[in-house]
Amino acid sequence: MDDRLAKQLEFAVTIDKEKNILRQTHLSGHGRRENDAEHAWHMAVMAYLLKEYANEPVDISKVMIMCLIHDIVEIEAGDTYAYDAEGHFSQKEREDTAKEKIFSLLPEDQKQDLIALFDEFEEGKTAEAKFAKAMDNLQPLILNNSNGGSDWREHGVTYAQVYGRHSGTRPGSETLFEYTESVINRHVEEGNIKATE
Amino acid sequence: MDDRLAKQLEFAVTIDKEKNILRQTHLSGHGRRENDAEHAWHMAVMAYLLKEYANEPVDISKVMIMCLIHDIVEIEAGDTYAYDAEGHFSQKEREDTAKEKIFSLLPEDQKQDLIALFDEFEEGKTAEAKFAKAMDNLQPLILNNSNGGSDWREHGVTYAQVYGRHSGTRPGSETLFEYTESVINRHVEEGNIKATE
Repeated sequence: MDDRLAKQLEFAVTIDKEKNILRQTHLSGHGRRENDAEHAWHMAVMAYLLKEYANEPVDISKVMIMCLIHDIVEIEAGDTYAYDAEGHFSQKEREDTAKEKIFSLLPEDQKQDLIALFDEFEEGKTAEAKFAKAMDNLQPLILNNSNGGSDWREHGVTYAQVYGRHSGTRPGSETLFEYTESVINRHVEEGNIKATE
Repeated sequence: MDDRLAKQLEFAVTIDKEKNILRQTHLSGHGRRENDAEHAWHMAVMAYLLKEYANEPVDISKVMIMCLIHDIVEIEAGDTYAYDAEGHFSQKEREDTAKEKIFSLLPEDQKQDLIALFDEFEEGKTAEAKFAKAMDNLQPLILNNSNGGSDWREHGVTYAQVYGRHSGTRPGSETLFEYTESVINRHVEEGNIKATE
């Protein structure tokens, strides 16, 4: 077999591990914890369906592949819960090492392509990255909302924490941020999100 | 909230169920059974990385969304194992009913868009559908191969069955079909696929 194809297929088998990286979000119907591959799939489908709400026109192909690969580094680095301040302190360093290791399995041109997409997402400056980040927030929000806010309740998170995280939806979509705010406010009223520390 | 957005978000929550539809393929490392959402994610990433092997130029955005949504009807219709002849007999009817039901959750324009993509995939005539179908075959093949062919061995499938199914890769990619043939032949030699009935 061609060396290039061999590398691509080795990468394809390696990223299978993303299905074993568990997140804090639970599936709808009070299901088990979601994994990174499921989250990425869901984000990409939602991006396709909700693209009309992006603040700026987006190249949806780029948004989808960004959604699909944005968590691949967690195969090596592990998932860091959105409200884990200490974990976030070391997250960047762990992810940089993981990024180099995982994407080096690919042929050089594809390694550079995927690293560029990953970095663009992380930096969150382009229209595509902003909208992909909105999906990264909105996807767990709709699952958690469907479960009566149980993920927030169990972790005892505060309004400031939740609002802070989800404010990252606004640069991607004002409309989806408005929806997000209404969901958050309702869960504060219901006591699923703590109003104060 | 806007009625259109409400419909889109209801659909988004509903398709979460795809994460509970189990396939016969096992994750690499002799893991648990894979689910439809994970399979779709993996197919879409592979499509992006392997698009250079498509027999004809493809619109990769279309291939990716086709990969992502091609199994959504199984939320209602259930998964039919590739080598279950009886299941396939009723599969079409079950899937048609499911398709109408699930995609009707969406606004009419998006319902029509997703049904068109689903049908195009099923018909397998366009360059995009052919390549997406190649991914639908190749993705479980690389996992099964990474597990020493245990999925084939456990189901006692024959060369004719496996070859028949994977011949569907050829219209999408001659190169990936060549690779597929080499994998199948090796597993016949190793006794993981029965040479005859």
